Amino acid sequence: MIKLFLTDVDGCLTDGGMYYSAEGEVMKRFCVYDGMGMVCLQQAGIPCGILTSEKSPLVKARAEKLKLRFLYLGVGSKVGKSVTRYDFSLQDAPSPSLSSELHSSSPSLSSESHSSSVLLGSRGVSAELPPMSKLQAAREICTQLGITLTDVCYVGDDINDIDLLREVGLPCCPPNARPEVKGISKSSGAQADIRILDTPGGQGAIRELADLILDQIPTQKGVIRG
Amino acid sequence: MIKLFLTDVDGCLTDGGMYYSAEGEVMKRFCVYDGMGMVCLQQAGIPCGILTSEKSPLVKARAEKLKLRFLYLGVGSKVGKSVTRYDFSLQDAPSPSLSSELHSSSPSLSSESHSSSVLLGSRGVSAELPPMSKLQAAREICTQLGITLTDVCYVGDDINDIDLLREVGLPCCPPNARPEVKGISKSSGAQADIRILDTPGGQGAIRELADLILDQIPTQKGVIRG
Amino acid sequence: MIKLFLTDVDGCLTDGGMYYSAEGEVMKRFCVYDGMGMVCLQQAGIPCGILTSEKSPLVKARAEKLKLRFLYLGVGSKVGKSVTRYDFSLQDAPSPSLSSELHSSSPSLSSESHSSSVLLGSRGVSAELPPMSKLQAAREICTQLGITLTDVCYVGDDINDIDLLREVGLPCCPPNARPEVKGISKSSGAQADIRILDTPGGQGAIRELADLILDQIPTQKGVIRG
Amino acid sequence: MIKLFLTDVDGCLTDGGMYYSAEGEVMKRFCVYDGMGMVCLQQAGIPCGILTSEKSPLVKARAEKLKLRFLYLGVGSKVGKSVTRYDFSLQDAPSPSLSSELHSSSPSLSSESHSSSVLLGSRGVSAELPPMSKLQAAREICTQLGITLTDVCYVGDDINDIDLLREVGLPCCPPNARPEVKGISKSSGAQADIRILDTPGGQGAIRELADLILDQIPTQKGVIRG
Repeated sequence: MIKLFLTDVDGCLTDGGMYYSAEGEVMKRFCVYDGMGMVCLQQAGIPCGILTSEKSPLVKARAEKLKLRFLYLGVGSKVGKSVTRYDFSLQDAPSPSLSSELHSSSPSLSSESHSSSVLLGSRGVSAELPPMSKLQAAREICTQLGITLTDVCYVGDDINDIDLLREVGLPCCPPNARPEVKGISKSSGAQADIRILDTPGGQGAIRELADLILDQIPTQKGVIRG
Repeated sequence: MIKLFLTDVDGCLTDGGMYYSAEGEVMKRFCVYDGMGMVCLQQAGIPCGILTSEKSPLVKARAEKLKLRFLYLGVGSKVGKSVTRYDFSLQDAPSPSLSSELHSSSPSLSSESHSSSVLLGSRGVSAELPPMSKLQAAREICTQLGITLTDVCYVGDDINDIDLLREVGLPCCPPNARPEVKGISKSSGAQADIRILDTPGGQGAIRELADLILDQIPTQKGVIRG
Repeated sequence: MIKLFLTDVDGCLTDGGMYYSAEGEVMKRFCVYDGMGMVCLQQAGIPCGILTSEKSPLVKARAEKLKLRFLYLGVGSKVGKSVTRYDFSLQDAPSPSLSSELHSSSPSLSSESHSSSVLLGSRGVSAELPPMSKLQAAREICTQLGITLTDVCYVGDDINDIDLLREVGLPCCPPNARPEVKGISKSSGAQADIRILDTPGGQGAIRELADLILDQIPTQKGVIRG
Repeated sequence: MIKLFLTDVDGCLTDGGMYYSAEGEVMKRFCVYDGMGMVCLQQAGIPCGILTSEKSPLVKARAEKLKLRFLYLGVGSKVGKSVTRYDFSLQDAPSPSLSSELHSSSPSLSSESHSSSVLLGSRGVSAELPPMSKLQAAREICTQLGITLTDVCYVGDDINDIDLLREVGLPCCPPNARPEVKGISKSSGAQADIRILDTPGGQGAIRELADLILDQIPTQKGVIRG
């Protein structure tokens, strides 16, 4: 059973579009269905996270809105930049989202201790970490949760996602993924054959997958989604 | 005959896209055809409204532009937040839209009294209400108008729309709705089989439906749309 | 031969999308191909114009960029708002666009006199006019140019375009137009059968049409577009 | 073998959409796949550049993010405006992107001398140049690199790209290109038949092409993309 859900951003949570103004990338287009999917997963006790190579405040805003348990900004950089980690599942202030349900349904997650460099801010809990790959980030999370990569679902679409996709138990990609990603298979040494989703990135690919995962735990689904 | 038209926002009035900047969601993409559809419905004496779980100023801006009779922000929240209700059909100031026609064609609507907590602002009439579900909001509106849920058309696309869709006389969804929504049927206890529209959300789904409803009142259609 | 090219905005120059922030509509998405099409038409001596019911600064910005000969904002309002007219083909300041070619290729247009209420600003020539329909606006332009509606190509997609579409010599619509628009025909009393373009609005519908018109004047096409 | 990769912007790096606010064009939508494609090409020693007729700060922002070797703004203007040239491959400041790899893998590029009017700014190296066409710009770059137009891949989609497309060794266009562009062929005197890509502009057309070019140099591909 899947115990952790992780995803890339561009091409997975979006259609790959990057909206530029004169100041650089100023907008991304996310999909309401994906948001609901990750909220339902976390309500069912499956923490969700985003791994992205950009230190993008746009992605931080989306992760915070959804109160995601894990956000790693800057992973997989080739020039050794540091990684910033956030945990938005611990927000204290009363808010219009689902924090109370999440905490009560997964108390074991919110009582964990964090690294010594934790910064307690008003918006999420963050820490600065040394440079790491997406695979290293996923391993760190697994250690923290006491699970292994075979318990992990990861969604990626481009060549810099391949290392991690080859190691997780449920590797997935949207149909718009690069050919090299779509070709990941056990016969070529990966942990599992990649699952190519029906729904393109940015149109609900993550929701399609969330529903598949939740269907494995039918008693939960009735309570949360019915 | 339909006496009230209500709709969800994301996935129905939009394609589900949520445009994020570093400040969170800053834009939604609405469709000109849907706007014209709701304007024509209100001209024909069928008040229109939006029910959404977000307290989104983007949705308020769109509802105000179309001078919608009902806007409920914050309905269906799981954490008990209050609901804000607006009525933009009563705007006094001269404006470039259709307020004069609306008032003359539906005088009975503009003379109704509002709750004691009514706030009279320059932009719409608003009230703060206790937490309520979408179904409760629709029931409140029906009481106000002296109609029943069987007189209501509601458009929704996700699991949090199901309770209301199962009770109204004309439940509809765009083709991009979640499978659970598309499966609503009388045989499973709903008031009516759901009507799956041909047009996707954000491309004119609401207009397709508005035309269907207006075709039921041909004498009106000739005057308003000819 | 077509002597004047006019078009609606939403659904014709765009895909019908209206991007809303908390401040209302803040963006429209235009298409580079349509811009080039109208520039080529004006270079070939066919003045271009936009007729829209909204007083939208977004549309003004696009018309100004393309140095369009005619822009009517606020035409066809049902509540009697005034109309603002612009002529961006007369801009004096040196600019990075095609003003010099336009002036030399169509000197007869730039020497015309304007109404007594002309406002000479640094950006286009504008005038405030009494309320008028799209049909009345097109008639005013025809009088100004000494042509008739049979010399006009107009592109529209919704019910408020029908009156004008029924009178012009070359009525056109994108494939996403409303059914009532697509059904315009000589047999129902219109001046001509409507031409349904292959290209959707916002993806180059206007360019498809511009190329069709320019193909009627092959000697010009070689010089301008070759 | 291709030694230089050049591309147009609208319709090639985008789907042709131009997002206008009241201030004119404020946004373009680029694609993450194209960005990765050009980064990989430059890592493999093939410098990349953009040629565009607009002096657009949006394009500059995208070129700077990708550390492109060549950016020419204002080429092909019909009114004789000057051209601004940038080189973002030489940025000194430590940054989160790939500058170090680029410099080490293509040292011969970073040691070249620039024109006497070079402006050394903190963000890229720029120079103001006299008016020139896209073909002239490409010739200037070839001279600088000691190559010929037969070594060049250029992607264009509209009539103002035809002159250059007819001269390069690998002329390409997205499937959304204008018919005149798609018809470029050796039989009509061009250097080569145009290659019509499978992927539309803005959805990864440039990446499709980058992968084709990189597949010609398999040893590089394994190192860079594996």
